[in-house]
Amino acid sequence: MLSIPSGYRFSSVYAGIRKVEKDDLGLIVSDKPASAAAVFTQNRVQAAPVKLCRKHLRSSRGHVKAILVNAGNANCATKSGDSVAESTCSTLAAKLKAPLEQMFPASTGVIGVELDPKLIVRALPELIKGLSADRFEDLSKAIMTTDTVPKTASREYTVGGKTVRIAGMTKGSGMIMPNMATTLGFIVTDVEVAPAKLKRMLDQSVAASYNRISVDGDTSTNDTVVVLANGASGAPADGEFQKALTEVLEDLAKQIVRDGEGAKKLVTIDVEGIVDDAGAEKIARSIANSPLVKTAIAGSDPNWGRILSAAGNAGVPFDPMRADIWMQGVAVCTGGLATDFSEDELKAKLDERECAIRFYVRGRGKGAARFWTCDFTEDYIKINASYRT
Amino acid sequence: MLSIPSGYRFSSVYAGIRKVEKDDLGLIVSDKPASAAAVFTQNRVQAAPVKLCRKHLRSSRGHVKAILVNAGNANCATKSGDSVAESTCSTLAAKLKAPLEQMFPASTGVIGVELDPKLIVRALPELIKGLSADRFEDLSKAIMTTDTVPKTASREYTVGGKTVRIAGMTKGSGMIMPNMATTLGFIVTDVEVAPAKLKRMLDQSVAASYNRISVDGDTSTNDTVVVLANGASGAPADGEFQKALTEVLEDLAKQIVRDGEGAKKLVTIDVEGIVDDAGAEKIARSIANSPLVKTAIAGSDPNWGRILSAAGNAGVPFDPMRADIWMQGVAVCTGGLATDFSEDELKAKLDERECAIRFYVRGRGKGAARFWTCDFTEDYIKINASYRT
Repeated sequence: MLSIPSGYRFSSVYAGIRKVEKDDLGLIVSDKPASAAAVFTQNRVQAAPVKLCRKHLRSSRGHVKAILVNAGNANCATKSGDSVAESTCSTLAAKLKAPLEQMFPASTGVIGVELDPKLIVRALPELIKGLSADRFEDLSKAIMTTDTVPKTASREYTVGGKTVRIAGMTKGSGMIMPNMATTLGFIVTDVEVAPAKLKRMLDQSVAASYNRISVDGDTSTNDTVVVLANGASGAPADGEFQKALTEVLEDLAKQIVRDGEGAKKLVTIDVEGIVDDAGAEKIARSIANSPLVKTAIAGSDPNWGRILSAAGNAGVPFDPMRADIWMQGVAVCTGGLATDFSEDELKAKLDERECAIRFYVRGRGKGAARFWTCDFTEDYIKINASYRT
Repeated sequence: MLSIPSGYRFSSVYAGIRKVEKDDLGLIVSDKPASAAAVFTQNRVQAAPVKLCRKHLRSSRGHVKAILVNAGNANCATKSGDSVAESTCSTLAAKLKAPLEQMFPASTGVIGVELDPKLIVRALPELIKGLSADRFEDLSKAIMTTDTVPKTASREYTVGGKTVRIAGMTKGSGMIMPNMATTLGFIVTDVEVAPAKLKRMLDQSVAASYNRISVDGDTSTNDTVVVLANGASGAPADGEFQKALTEVLEDLAKQIVRDGEGAKKLVTIDVEGIVDDAGAEKIARSIANSPLVKTAIAGSDPNWGRILSAAGNAGVPFDPMRADIWMQGVAVCTGGLATDFSEDELKAKLDERECAIRFYVRGRGKGAARFWTCDFTEDYIKINASYRT
């Protein structure tokens, strides 16, 4: 059961953007303008809604009244992209009687295909009419593309007699390797916080969650994670809020990886004993992005040599003769050399739905990092060789 | 018909290193010690033979009498790795009555499994007995692992009445993304050249060939490309030699990509109009390594948005609104926007065995790069999920 903060309403409809008749247009409205913070893709190519959100956040000084999101079209690399994002936001603002700059658009889907704004404008009345505090989960389904399951998470905690709620939804399954943010993530909370502080807290939570996952090493042109805080709880954002926010984001990020295109297993990678955290993260990312490691895990093959080799490719100095590797808690490599682990027993353990890899370099390095990825199966190829057709 | 330089002999036998009874041990002997130059993997984890080759090249001041190569075991990350490489080279040197430091060992296969030196030592007499000037192609088969075809190339040219011959063989199909060199490549020539100059020429040719290919973005622990020059032609190494060496290396490198694990198509990527060559190479590499681009090509899907997005991920500045993209010579994106190309016609063209992608940024940038990769099919996963088992 999700814990949804009060003061927000949600809606979704089928606007005809995607071919399959399944909701493809969604709306989140905050009863009063909320403090807002967002992180966006670091790709040089940025979709029209990403550019418009940046602009709106600047001019509204970090306040958002509504998030308008469509699936089925990325609204990226098209002639009319900017004007589609602007005109649909403008129509929505008029209908909500709110300033244009408090509209936050987001799109996900295919790149390079014109998005017809009439489809969205025509659907807005029904979309607004459907707004309700209990349609959070409907909306989480409308933003899915190749996702096989909707992804939501929530936390609540009580401080000084006031209950703070955080609820988030996300989508994403392929084209996932966040550099700053990834895919779409919408978080609403009733904590009380100024936009600038909210941004610092979001950055910290994203660094430990969305920026630590990879499905295929590709960063999308539309990646956006945004958090709205309407202050309805009356409780200020403290360390407890930071912790809960990180938990919600980590929960959502892991759901993305678990639903990675074609994935059957969630892989958690822990790297320790490196000179600093940044180096540990590079090594963890290199292991997480190695197709050879990911296919070995798909085949339940304890081929730790591929893990060692992937670590060696990260461009981070370490002594291979001090490297220890564990898979599913079994020491498979000690001091850079094979142990006498039972291959059959480990194979059986690798058949589980979750896989843990630990890479530890003995010495005085205090750098550590945790990263999540998925295994790499034939279905990833099937899904992506025919995504548009 | 290959053009093999005189003064070299080749041999291969089955030593029992791999399970399948197929030659797995090979030898190249130069009648007189040859000038030698080599490039090695940049992976932090380096196999025992790679470390020993570096040491031998230093102490022999760039002279090699024999190359001893095995398939089926990488001799990497094992307790006995260094001593296996040394003892087998030492036995070979004694039998060839040549200095130990002129022995050049190489290994390819699985990482982290002890290699029994007795298998090699026991096979040496038969291996040496089998040496012959016309067994170049037998040897090129013995070094194959997941390769489906042997890979050889040669060139010859005449200068001042003297004929120079260059013949090369290579192996490799997965774990391919060279940083400095990749996989195993053995080149023999009868040009006359000092080791230091040969190294500069090899570096230049490798930069335009082996360092411009990628199958899966992984760099192996054993990558080695070595060229031997025995001077038998009496002709010095000039610009003509450099050109022929690059041609041989490019020919071999493209054969590796064409035989990429599970690959059905060779993809040539040209990037132009970037601020410098290094930036163009980064963009080309980013496109070549994108699983989404590679799966789209497998599915003959003209999904150019993925190419634009992959270019945007390279970390190199360019204006997406000035980007033009061609696939199979068809303009699919002009100034960052879709053209009105016929999707059906282009799909048919993408069914061909070779695919050409051109990414051009309009402006004054003179940086350009060419890169080769392959498509990404379900068979890559099949091969790698069960390589050891």
